[in-house]
Amino acid sequence: MPLNIVLIEPEIPNNTGNIGRLALASGAHLHLVQPFGFEITDTRLKRAGLDYWPHVTITTYDSASDFFEQHRDKKMAFLSSHGKKDYWDIPFEDNLFLIFGKESVGLSKDILDTNQEHLYKIPLFSNHIRSLNLANAVAIVTYEGLKTLK
Amino acid sequence: MPLNIVLIEPEIPNNTGNIGRLALASGAHLHLVQPFGFEITDTRLKRAGLDYWPHVTITTYDSASDFFEQHRDKKMAFLSSHGKKDYWDIPFEDNLFLIFGKESVGLSKDILDTNQEHLYKIPLFSNHIRSLNLANAVAIVTYEGLKTLK
Repeated sequence: MPLNIVLIEPEIPNNTGNIGRLALASGAHLHLVQPFGFEITDTRLKRAGLDYWPHVTITTYDSASDFFEQHRDKKMAFLSSHGKKDYWDIPFEDNLFLIFGKESVGLSKDILDTNQEHLYKIPLFSNHIRSLNLANAVAIVTYEGLKTLK
Repeated sequence: MPLNIVLIEPEIPNNTGNIGRLALASGAHLHLVQPFGFEITDTRLKRAGLDYWPHVTITTYDSASDFFEQHRDKKMAFLSSHGKKDYWDIPFEDNLFLIFGKESVGLSKDILDTNQEHLYKIPLFSNHIRSLNLANAVAIVTYEGLKTLK
């Protein structure tokens, strides 16, 4: 597995669906950290037409501390509008974990404070928006990694 | 304006909304070619919380032939799963037009046939999906261009 995509407490089911599709497309492993803003049930997946979902490699976690406990020795890059470095400066390598926060507020202050050295942003050239759609942000960063590691 | 994002006959309003946000973020000009699979009205935009929409630089066209007629002398790259070259090989330059087809079927056979030399794909590493979400595809290609031209 070249890359790991981590969504901490995702809120919008449509985004997580599109990110699953992206994980498949890029050969990435998807890690979903609870609580979610939705329920993942067979009925819902079927209704949303996510027929590819069973093929996505997914690990779920009860909480952020559970996730960080299990992966404490891993290399990680944290995506945040508070990042000082641009995402194209991420030192991509096999098995790198790309960490994304929730749609409404991003990563928690606690996570940001603990990982100051590994915060990266997607540069935005307008002050009329504060961020990109979460799935779009994941797409941009994951494919940058894929291109670098190809 | 560094780049032009062109959506030919977009079908899903949520995608066009996210692509508008992306156009703002990247300083791109958004071109929307009718017919759309939705109506753009003030009420709908307000309901969808697209408060940034009035700031997006948008040109609309009555039809694909209208669009190509107006921009016949411009440099263009066409995104399609039928492309033989990868999107990172697009020769990005200021004012390049990035052309995307509709969600369900992509670009028409006519457009593909006429522009064989300028077709590019986003590589997919799974045969369980045929394409990425349209907004994700636009995000990946536009930010690749932005990074190249920065």
